Amino acid sequence: MATTEFDTSLPSIKQLQELIKQKTVVEWKLVNGDLLKGKICWQDHNCVCIVNEQNQQITIWKQAIAYFHSQ
Amino acid sequence: MATTEFDTSLPSIKQLQELIKQKTVVEWKLVNGDLLKGKICWQDHNCVCIVNEQNQQITIWKQAIAYFHSQ
Amino acid sequence: MATTEFDTSLPSIKQLQELIKQKTVVEWKLVNGDLLKGKICWQDHNCVCIVNEQNQQITIWKQAIAYFHSQ
Amino acid sequence: MATTEFDTSLPSIKQLQELIKQKTVVEWKLVNGDLLKGKICWQDHNCVCIVNEQNQQITIWKQAIAYFHSQ
Amino acid sequence: MATTEFDTSLPSIKQLQELIKQKTVVEWKLVNGDLLKGKICWQDHNCVCIVNEQNQQITIWKQAIAYFHSQ
Amino acid sequence: MATTEFDTSLPSIKQLQELIKQKTVVEWKLVNGDLLKGKICWQDHNCVCIVNEQNQQITIWKQAIAYFHSQ
Repeated sequence: MATTEFDTSLPSIKQLQELIKQKTVVEWKLVNGDLLKGKICWQDHNCVCIVNEQNQQITIWKQAIAYFHSQ
Repeated sequence: MATTEFDTSLPSIKQLQELIKQKTVVEWKLVNGDLLKGKICWQDHNCVCIVNEQNQQITIWKQAIAYFHSQ
Repeated sequence: MATTEFDTSLPSIKQLQELIKQKTVVEWKLVNGDLLKGKICWQDHNCVCIVNEQNQQITIWKQAIAYFHSQ
Repeated sequence: MATTEFDTSLPSIKQLQELIKQKTVVEWKLVNGDLLKGKICWQDHNCVCIVNEQNQQITIWKQAIAYFHSQ
Repeated sequence: MATTEFDTSLPSIKQLQELIKQKTVVEWKLVNGDLLKGKICWQDHNCVCIVNEQNQQITIWKQAIAYFHSQ
Repeated sequence: MATTEFDTSLPSIKQLQELIKQKTVVEWKLVNGDLLKGKICWQDHNCVCIVNEQNQQITIWKQAIAYFHSQ
């Protein structure tokens, strides 16, 4: 996967872009069982950056995400 | 794996497309032990998006799927 | 790994093709500890599809397989 | 992903470069549940090298990172 | 990683080839904690096939191997 | 990631080469929670080979490493 290839035509990428625009609170379940919650600041090829309810910025590696859903 | 390469000739991709058409309820077992259930809305190179019985949309990363089977 | 590259000259791919032909019952141990058992219907670049003793079709992601052996 | 491709235009890469400059203490949660804390010395395609409070240098594989946030 | 690229110049590939020649019994520790033991029949890009003390052939996915050492 | 690409200009690769030269004892924490200790014999694209205090050679898959630090 070429590092810079970030295919904005993919439904999964577009879905995250939409959630960024709508400032939706999203719940993230990770492969290690952790559960995170927050609005998405940005996404790129490797990561998603969110801000949680304590206004803390958290950068999640996409490789560690099991699934997500909006609240 | 080129990001945009989504090979619809693959049996595994075709199988998911078929389940989308038939609106089949599918059970997903993830690598972290989580079990999800729902009909598939769409799939792309990275993810599968399902709707569960509570009508909640959940996007699952394909990298986190161990196996699935229809109900 | 180009999505469509499915190298049937690889011993591991040929071994699965052979098990399909012989309709052998195979035990699959997954990275999350799950244990599945069944005959192989098909394999592709991403997945292996099996039918278990309850005649249920289960699609396993190859990325989630730790090891397998025939019964 | 070509080994030498290290795309400094990616927000996630730039974010880490910024944290290096600011000598920020960062908390790293790994996919195996481990929690590490320290300032970042350097990052490359595969790893992030930090120095913890005991002045010990620890090299973390990016593939093992679930998420991080500054303290 | 091109599917058919199997670089026999790599020390790790050569080491396994050597262990095959010497019919050495090797212990394999997997990422899910499983421990397997056996002589190596063959290796390819994706897998290593071993025969254990019960003369059972087991195919291990290289992606699931944490480490190995000869007995 | 081309199999044979082993980019010795990467800080993480150079760091391991340095530890090999200095015959430093390194502690390796793996994604399955295992902890290994030993001097590094060699590294390649896929693996790191160490010798532990019992003079046993252990080959670790880089994909299974969470982090390491010298003793």
